[in-house]
Amino acid sequence: MAEKDLNELFLDTLKDIYYAEKQILKALPKMAKAANSDKLRTAFEKHHDETEGQIERLEQIFEQLGKAARGKKCEAIEGILDEGKEIMDEYADTPALDAGLLAAAQAVEHYEISRYGTLKAWAAKLDMPQAVKLLEQTLAEEKNTDETLTKIAETAVNYEAAA
Amino acid sequence: MAEKDLNELFLDTLKDIYYAEKQILKALPKMAKAANSDKLRTAFEKHHDETEGQIERLEQIFEQLGKAARGKKCEAIEGILDEGKEIMDEYADTPALDAGLLAAAQAVEHYEISRYGTLKAWAAKLDMPQAVKLLEQTLAEEKNTDETLTKIAETAVNYEAAA
Repeated sequence: MAEKDLNELFLDTLKDIYYAEKQILKALPKMAKAANSDKLRTAFEKHHDETEGQIERLEQIFEQLGKAARGKKCEAIEGILDEGKEIMDEYADTPALDAGLLAAAQAVEHYEISRYGTLKAWAAKLDMPQAVKLLEQTLAEEKNTDETLTKIAETAVNYEAAA
Repeated sequence: MAEKDLNELFLDTLKDIYYAEKQILKALPKMAKAANSDKLRTAFEKHHDETEGQIERLEQIFEQLGKAARGKKCEAIEGILDEGKEIMDEYADTPALDAGLLAAAQAVEHYEISRYGTLKAWAAKLDMPQAVKLLEQTLAEEKNTDETLTKIAETAVNYEAAA
């Protein structure tokens, strides 16, 4: 029996992030709808479009591996998104809602940054230069989104209760 | 009835990361025990000690707020650690185990980086300079741990099956 190796771990993790991206794609319109700040809403809408492209890149990598693009339930993203939903419920119609949405979105971005960083490093070890390039593109987008969210948190969110 | 505001969101998120740190404190010795690479084991042991200090810093912030230090179940860290456990089981005694442990640990670090980044920004908005300082110290440690793990992934992990 062949031992499980890095090829298999790469494929498992690819399925994990593929599942995660599809959950994120469903969550983003709800987060955009909830946001009070126009800049925050726009950022969520933009990231929704980017996420579609990121899913396509993952599908290209599955194809390069000769495997069907299939997700595998990712407990991590479920937990992160559940926390986000809880904040959206508990802080609905409060002045802190946008701050909570931003925190939830940044937790999502950091999960993705860690996963894409890992996958990119493994693709290099596995001598898959095309996959490295695709993963690098997505990783740059995720880091950029995280920075945009940090800027919005600093400048465009009103934390005060409406008078 | 008072509206929920950023003070409350800060306290909720403090409870979330306090719970998360305690779970991480329990997980790290198991991860250290499982690791094949000496450098990886040492990194997990070092981070275990750091985590104790991080928990103490959180307790200082609870004290500054005049609140009891209490955790609140954090679904995100539960999901992230569950995935790590799954990898430890599925890849036990395989050459990819350390790679899987590293990936799990970096997902944990990134969750913490996002939470401490958020808390630090909110502490500044809430005019809590002492809390900002404590959160900044922990944030620097988490980023440093993430970088150490990246270096270990690049240099100290043997991905090949033992001959």
